[in-house]
Amino acid sequence: MKNLKIASLFLLMGSFAINAQSLKSPDGKFEMNFQLKSGVPFYNLKYDGKTIVEDSKLGLRLLRDGDIQFASEIEGKNQQGKDLNSGFEKTAEKFDSKNESWNPVLGEKKSYINHYNELAVTLNQPENERHIVVKFRLFNDGLGFRYEFPEQKNLNYFIIKEEDSEIDLPNDMKIFWIPGDYDSQEYLYTESKISEIPAKWPTSYDGNASQTLIKNGIQIPTILKTEGKTPFYMTISEAAVINYPTANVEVDAINFKFKTHLTPDGQGAKGYIQTPAVSPWRTIIASTKAEEVLDSKMIFNLNEPTHYTDTSYIKPTKYMGVWWEMIIGKSQWAYSTANNVHIGKTDFTKLTPNGKHAANNTKVKEYIDFASANGFDALLIEGWNIGWEDWFGHSKEFVFDFITPYPDFDIKMLNDYAHKKGIKLMMHHETSGSATNYERWADKAYQLMNKYGYDAVKTGYVGNIIPRGEHHYSQWTINHYTRIAEKANDYKIMVNSHESVRPTGQSRTYPNWIAAEAARGTEFEAFGGNNPDHQTILPFTRFMGGPMDYTPGIFQTKLDYYFPGDTRFVKTTLAKQLALYVVMYSPLQMAADLPENYAKHMDAFQFIKDVAADWDDTKILSAEPGDYIHTARKAKGKDEWFVGGITDETTRDFTVDFSFLDKGRKYEATVYEDGKDADYIRNPQSYKIYKKTVDSKSKLSLRLARSGGYAISVKPLK
Amino acid sequence: MKNLKIASLFLLMGSFAINAQSLKSPDGKFEMNFQLKSGVPFYNLKYDGKTIVEDSKLGLRLLRDGDIQFASEIEGKNQQGKDLNSGFEKTAEKFDSKNESWNPVLGEKKSYINHYNELAVTLNQPENERHIVVKFRLFNDGLGFRYEFPEQKNLNYFIIKEEDSEIDLPNDMKIFWIPGDYDSQEYLYTESKISEIPAKWPTSYDGNASQTLIKNGIQIPTILKTEGKTPFYMTISEAAVINYPTANVEVDAINFKFKTHLTPDGQGAKGYIQTPAVSPWRTIIASTKAEEVLDSKMIFNLNEPTHYTDTSYIKPTKYMGVWWEMIIGKSQWAYSTANNVHIGKTDFTKLTPNGKHAANNTKVKEYIDFASANGFDALLIEGWNIGWEDWFGHSKEFVFDFITPYPDFDIKMLNDYAHKKGIKLMMHHETSGSATNYERWADKAYQLMNKYGYDAVKTGYVGNIIPRGEHHYSQWTINHYTRIAEKANDYKIMVNSHESVRPTGQSRTYPNWIAAEAARGTEFEAFGGNNPDHQTILPFTRFMGGPMDYTPGIFQTKLDYYFPGDTRFVKTTLAKQLALYVVMYSPLQMAADLPENYAKHMDAFQFIKDVAADWDDTKILSAEPGDYIHTARKAKGKDEWFVGGITDETTRDFTVDFSFLDKGRKYEATVYEDGKDADYIRNPQSYKIYKKTVDSKSKLSLRLARSGGYAISVKPLK
Repeated sequence: MKNLKIASLFLLMGSFAINAQSLKSPDGKFEMNFQLKSGVPFYNLKYDGKTIVEDSKLGLRLLRDGDIQFASEIEGKNQQGKDLNSGFEKTAEKFDSKNESWNPVLGEKKSYINHYNELAVTLNQPENERHIVVKFRLFNDGLGFRYEFPEQKNLNYFIIKEEDSEIDLPNDMKIFWIPGDYDSQEYLYTESKISEIPAKWPTSYDGNASQTLIKNGIQIPTILKTEGKTPFYMTISEAAVINYPTANVEVDAINFKFKTHLTPDGQGAKGYIQTPAVSPWRTIIASTKAEEVLDSKMIFNLNEPTHYTDTSYIKPTKYMGVWWEMIIGKSQWAYSTANNVHIGKTDFTKLTPNGKHAANNTKVKEYIDFASANGFDALLIEGWNIGWEDWFGHSKEFVFDFITPYPDFDIKMLNDYAHKKGIKLMMHHETSGSATNYERWADKAYQLMNKYGYDAVKTGYVGNIIPRGEHHYSQWTINHYTRIAEKANDYKIMVNSHESVRPTGQSRTYPNWIAAEAARGTEFEAFGGNNPDHQTILPFTRFMGGPMDYTPGIFQTKLDYYFPGDTRFVKTTLAKQLALYVVMYSPLQMAADLPENYAKHMDAFQFIKDVAADWDDTKILSAEPGDYIHTARKAKGKDEWFVGGITDETTRDFTVDFSFLDKGRKYEATVYEDGKDADYIRNPQSYKIYKKTVDSKSKLSLRLARSGGYAISVKPLK
Repeated sequence: MKNLKIASLFLLMGSFAINAQSLKSPDGKFEMNFQLKSGVPFYNLKYDGKTIVEDSKLGLRLLRDGDIQFASEIEGKNQQGKDLNSGFEKTAEKFDSKNESWNPVLGEKKSYINHYNELAVTLNQPENERHIVVKFRLFNDGLGFRYEFPEQKNLNYFIIKEEDSEIDLPNDMKIFWIPGDYDSQEYLYTESKISEIPAKWPTSYDGNASQTLIKNGIQIPTILKTEGKTPFYMTISEAAVINYPTANVEVDAINFKFKTHLTPDGQGAKGYIQTPAVSPWRTIIASTKAEEVLDSKMIFNLNEPTHYTDTSYIKPTKYMGVWWEMIIGKSQWAYSTANNVHIGKTDFTKLTPNGKHAANNTKVKEYIDFASANGFDALLIEGWNIGWEDWFGHSKEFVFDFITPYPDFDIKMLNDYAHKKGIKLMMHHETSGSATNYERWADKAYQLMNKYGYDAVKTGYVGNIIPRGEHHYSQWTINHYTRIAEKANDYKIMVNSHESVRPTGQSRTYPNWIAAEAARGTEFEAFGGNNPDHQTILPFTRFMGGPMDYTPGIFQTKLDYYFPGDTRFVKTTLAKQLALYVVMYSPLQMAADLPENYAKHMDAFQFIKDVAADWDDTKILSAEPGDYIHTARKAKGKDEWFVGGITDETTRDFTVDFSFLDKGRKYEATVYEDGKDADYIRNPQSYKIYKKTVDSKSKLSLRLARSGGYAISVKPLK
């Protein structure tokens, strides 16, 4: 009997083993288990033996193979494709692993380590005689998984109706989230429990130039936390969204279950796929330490290395801009009083100037003088080109030509003037969402940039996308962004895209796409306003897949300085604005304020002039999402370090431990700290600056005001 | 009392006159009356004092000013714009007239006469403080009218929900029509009464690669006839569809009323308009004589003169093609057996050839030999470029690159070979409906054409349009076609577009857009088949706005010649095929059959070799829509005439009166006539050829077989 029982046990284990696979991270802390339950694929995730993701379903639903006619037919019965979510048998599994390091062209560290164990499970659907692969990669910082669709006889073309990848959490957790939307990420974060999401969803957003909200949905990346004695942090995101729509997430707030919800096109289709193809990676970065979540490079590791042959033109860029004065309403992008212009037909020299056009020769030269005198790489000028009179709100396809300046902008003279002073101009291409038009003009626009010596462009996608019906995060538009990045590379141009899709690590593949906005940035301080904790959340979410052009550096935080009675203000202290250059990584950093405001605080401005934007090393000293972040970074190729710390609406004390410095060396630290009476509402411009000699054994106690911060530049003493 | 009555009468007349305007054609036969009835605009039309169009409403309904979000919002209450169809007062009227002649670059006559009286009525909407203009032009061949939207304070941007221009006929009429469709015109004509349209609509169409039918709707151009003792003919159409969607027509079959129904985009919007703007012209060409309808050049007259500075590269083109053998199924466009290829990635040299690829070096040289030996200008080759393996049915955006030949097509060698023999190759760009992709590659594709000496391209739009949701006749796609014409002009390239929009006279503005298919052509003889009367209808409808690449010249009409048991056949006699070169005007004419079939009938082929494609003069000798057409044309710059006549399924006799010849000169006429026992089913290849000396006093009696015809080439005797 015993033998029979043992035999049965082995048989049982065997049959379990046949349908279940286990994968561990290199350090053994994470364990992923895959299994088929009645032909349906599931995975779960454990950390230190404890379940952090319960059995969660995988799969996709398809529209009929082949093309679809029009929207009215999408829901028709004969449109139903045979889904890729059930009826599977596992026919193969393949283990693999990798331990490599690679150097990002621009990054937070000189090298990133890509170390994982991998399991690729082949799932066959006998009924349809076709198979897919689900690939899992387990890193020491978490899990990534994706679908692979090999080219084969019975799987060549299909259309996704929906991807149903689930993440089923065992318990309620604290979560920082923004509402799901096919067109915008420019929202404040809501901090709540997962269970509270439906109740809080209706008040989680304000208006936007282009928005298509998903009721009760949220966006990724999102960060979650289990509170208590053994806190646990988890960022859910995706990596390598290429030729595929962006995923939002549907929330089952009762079962704490998340499910992917892809961005549709204008007809409701969620992805036109030709095999061989792969989905993006769905990623779960997790740790007991928030600092380790911030330190994770998993999303970049999951992207393909670049195919670019020359990346020498891709450089860290610090810039100022003829921009903030338009954002706050002091001047305008448009040149004339007209409200109806025809590019290529209207004679702009005959229009009546509105007297508020910022991008004029006189003002631009003043900005050039200041920016060049203070060592900046570039000056952005918005409103330089014809078309701003009626650029927004009309679904105007031929809205800009990107090559014709206004009558008061002498493109040759200004570029010569800037170059003589050792600074470049930064190009601006606001597309107004009219992506087809931008693609039509891109070659001519980039040729113009080459002709006049511009090497970087800020693009914008304010307003609904043309092709009409497509969304900012639809597959077609994702492909547009990558087409632009690739074309810009042909012309050796760096791209900083605003209102585009949030990056998912593709700076590894397209290193000239050096930054994006794609979240609620500093400009919103002049619109609805940003919360004091906003910058303590974004690095855990938006920044996980790539840098953000947050455009910090506002010294004149109160806007009643310009407009008596105006209640708008930037909700931080001045010192916190300095800290943002360290805490929020971007190789492209703007000193966003007007020169006159820096001129009044040249001592504080010195930090912005000194801070690097490209790094050999990064240490997250201490961090808690929604509360505070303290970061130290070592400038690339130099022995200089920069430290920055920020807090939310709570005052905090923090001690910087300088043990990251080289042992046995002495350094001079210049500290920029909130003044004793500083406060982001009552006294934002109160700060103190002092120097200290430090070494690797030093500690420095600092006090952060409400929505305050500090910045420290550390240079070796000779 | 009498004074009062007279005064009242004058007052009445005066008040009538205030709101009504009358316009007459130059010869006084047509009279158009415009009036406002309670602020709603109406017009009517009389011919010889008899009402041919009763009071018919005008106007447009708008979506809200500004851009719309997404489809679900189109029907929302807050989307309702203030319509432009009521609440009008007439604030101005302006009469004008013109009598000019202009020379088309390529045409049916050396000069076209543009002679009209015009009335422009300004209609103000006091409630919305905005105005529009309705402009009427009355020619001796009928009426054209359009809306004009001047730039003004309260009318800058608007979106059309629907244009509601009506044509209200007093009585039932015979009508030749095809069903309304946003994507295809490739239908057989139904001959019926207007009142019978709803009953016949469900069986009026067969399937198509891309179709979106409008239930009970019909397309324009359409030709109508009042039968009886005083027959009357009327072609309803539109002219100058530029930056506006194409109109179909809704039919009220009880009241014999037609109303415009514009083509929507993917979200249901029917036109994004920025002022100043104009609608297309709605045209009613009418006469007691069918011949005069065919002779009308009104649609061209209503288009703008060209802005092109150099039209010298635009030439009449007679061509053969590596094409028909693929259409009938004898060979293939694709090179390999693969069904899944990736442009730019797949190595086509490694694929398995299917052995049926027609566009290979050997075969193309054979075609070049034959075409050049017989004096053709060009040889079209389809299937020369990579991508045909999976080109259709997958909504594949990056479907072709238009620049990479298959491994067995040596583009340099073949062009050199052709040029040495005095013939050009004709390029082929099948877009597969992927218009965004074609625009992306157009510059490189045209540069390739310039490099290898191609001067003409046949484009194709088989399949649904990308941007997905747009239709073949949506505003966006109309703009795409004109963008392509303009870009081709930059490279001095002529365009012949298939599956595109039907021309509406824009060859005057874009003379390099020399022909289009955009109707059911000869290829359908190999698909569903064309009716014997098809070619007697098309000139009254499809051809009214511009030439059609009908691709005639099939000598081997029965396809069982290739495939034993195949029942498909071209439903005409061989002699009728010759006549089509005269009856169906196009400056681009194909001899569509295989060389081997011409080789067997070199005597008949001589007509095709001789016939011109560009004309100094045209005489419609006799015509009846649906029954027969007899046409004589004088070759441009020569003293040669060509005569052609065709009939439907009825045998007919016809006497050609040569009074169009120069008096006092003698000519040799070579007559190609149906044989005595010719019949399109039983004996299509029976024909006779004979010569006769003729002069302006000669008459020649001919007999046309069932679906037969005749062709005559007339050359002066020395």
